[in-house]
Amino acid sequence: MPTLGIDLGGTFARAAVVDGGGKMLASAKVALAERSPTGVVETIAQAAAAAVKGAGVPVSSCGVGAAAQIHKDSGVLSVAPNLGWRNVPLGQMLTARLGQPVRVVNDLAAAAWGELHAGAGRGASDLLVVFVGSGVGSAIIANAKLLDGAGGVAGELGHIKVVPGGRRCGCGELGCLEAYAGGHNLITQTRELLAAGRSPKLVELTDGDPARVTPVTLELAAEAGEDASREVYERAAQFLALAVANQVTVLNPARLILGGGVLTHCVGMRRRVVEGVQSWASQVSREGLLITESELGDDSGIIGAALLAA
Amino acid sequence: MPTLGIDLGGTFARAAVVDGGGKMLASAKVALAERSPTGVVETIAQAAAAAVKGAGVPVSSCGVGAAAQIHKDSGVLSVAPNLGWRNVPLGQMLTARLGQPVRVVNDLAAAAWGELHAGAGRGASDLLVVFVGSGVGSAIIANAKLLDGAGGVAGELGHIKVVPGGRRCGCGELGCLEAYAGGHNLITQTRELLAAGRSPKLVELTDGDPARVTPVTLELAAEAGEDASREVYERAAQFLALAVANQVTVLNPARLILGGGVLTHCVGMRRRVVEGVQSWASQVSREGLLITESELGDDSGIIGAALLAA
Repeated sequence: MPTLGIDLGGTFARAAVVDGGGKMLASAKVALAERSPTGVVETIAQAAAAAVKGAGVPVSSCGVGAAAQIHKDSGVLSVAPNLGWRNVPLGQMLTARLGQPVRVVNDLAAAAWGELHAGAGRGASDLLVVFVGSGVGSAIIANAKLLDGAGGVAGELGHIKVVPGGRRCGCGELGCLEAYAGGHNLITQTRELLAAGRSPKLVELTDGDPARVTPVTLELAAEAGEDASREVYERAAQFLALAVANQVTVLNPARLILGGGVLTHCVGMRRRVVEGVQSWASQVSREGLLITESELGDDSGIIGAALLAA
Repeated sequence: MPTLGIDLGGTFARAAVVDGGGKMLASAKVALAERSPTGVVETIAQAAAAAVKGAGVPVSSCGVGAAAQIHKDSGVLSVAPNLGWRNVPLGQMLTARLGQPVRVVNDLAAAAWGELHAGAGRGASDLLVVFVGSGVGSAIIANAKLLDGAGGVAGELGHIKVVPGGRRCGCGELGCLEAYAGGHNLITQTRELLAAGRSPKLVELTDGDPARVTPVTLELAAEAGEDASREVYERAAQFLALAVANQVTVLNPARLILGGGVLTHCVGMRRRVVEGVQSWASQVSREGLLITESELGDDSGIIGAALLAA
């Protein structure tokens, strides 16, 4: 029987009915009207009902991928920064609301599972999945299983330290990779250059409007050769590429799957990551490594969540 | 029935008869007379016979831990730098010689398995084991299984790049962690300081004899506050501590087990690694992490190899 996949973001809940082969039969997206746990549960239920209605078939169970640290087994979201939540028993609440078994996992874990079974990871058992969007996330599949770690928070590549004592990250700590290379922080750093009047090129690209800054803006200014932009961009690219290369060395995956808005739209940044892996991952870990783009893109998480619930 | 564990180093073969609980019943150590594959197989057989004779009980199978990259499943040593071997089918040769099933694994993987079942990892399912001896090695246990990677070479923490384009490593690549923080390279770097006449303190500690340099010599000179030695030492300690901390962030192990000659004898270096993990691993990965010393020490590999064969 098909299952239900939920992608819980900071502003929307998406639901999809997915068959056993990872094909989406129908989906629905509903804006989060309010961010209280009960409000979000209602919105998810609404999206779920719409997707089930669209598919016209019943579902047996539900999987949720959420941008959060999730307590292993219990489905409690210990920290969900986008929603401002701490210790919300989402799994239990949704099970009661939907009257179905619900499994809650980290969004990147769901995405990796989706790619493994229905995307760019098909046929492999060992994957490293790196998504760079507003943050930097990763998930590890080893021997065809999710590597979740003792506390369920494995894969937090965005929070390795690249500059001890460096820029403050959204997680509250200093010098994380995400503080330099995550999309949100690329924008922040670019706006800092703009505000400091250090980049005529950025002014030209944005008409001086900080609201128009995107990671692509920074890439264009850097590629135009402007020093201040290049410094910020090169630093981010180097940190990201080296971090990914080093994880390839340690984990020896069969495939490295790259996705997320920054790596999709900043073509130069993606190229730097690929070149970095080819240069810096150990030779034995590079042999036989396939570097590929995410095949399911934005749908990897919702499909993976549904398949994890099957 | 007990099994046989073999620890194949660059100069000795050790064999031990180990019971199902990881207890060594008897062991034997034989110097490698010659390093040809057939010569080494004979030496291993000799050590094995001595250990079995000492134990006075038969064994059912044999596990080998070797400082080598080992092809998954086949037991072929693709590269064994200490022995100067390439593509030696050691598993097959030993199976024929001993008349028993033989499993060959990387020495760090064997050590991690030993610690998991009979040492500092008992009761946990997720371990990161880091040994710093002449090289820097690590192994990962996830969900009570060895993480071996697609090609069987996962865990090569010593060969992550810490300085792209930096010092040449024994593996032939540039800028590996091991090129800065492995015991062999700590000695090389210290001898460079001595040869360059940059360190009166090192001259004092060694009577100017490069043959007397050990990693502890460097630590003593650095702790005495001498700039040149401190620079080399601090760089090694920082790279090592940051690398281990970042792996804790990504892997979220329940326990971090530290061992090997450098981390055993260089107390300051071990302290730096522990402090680095406490400072730089992400908060969520530090929660509930136990940092501990290897309990089995030099026997972890031989015990683990025997248990892997059980």
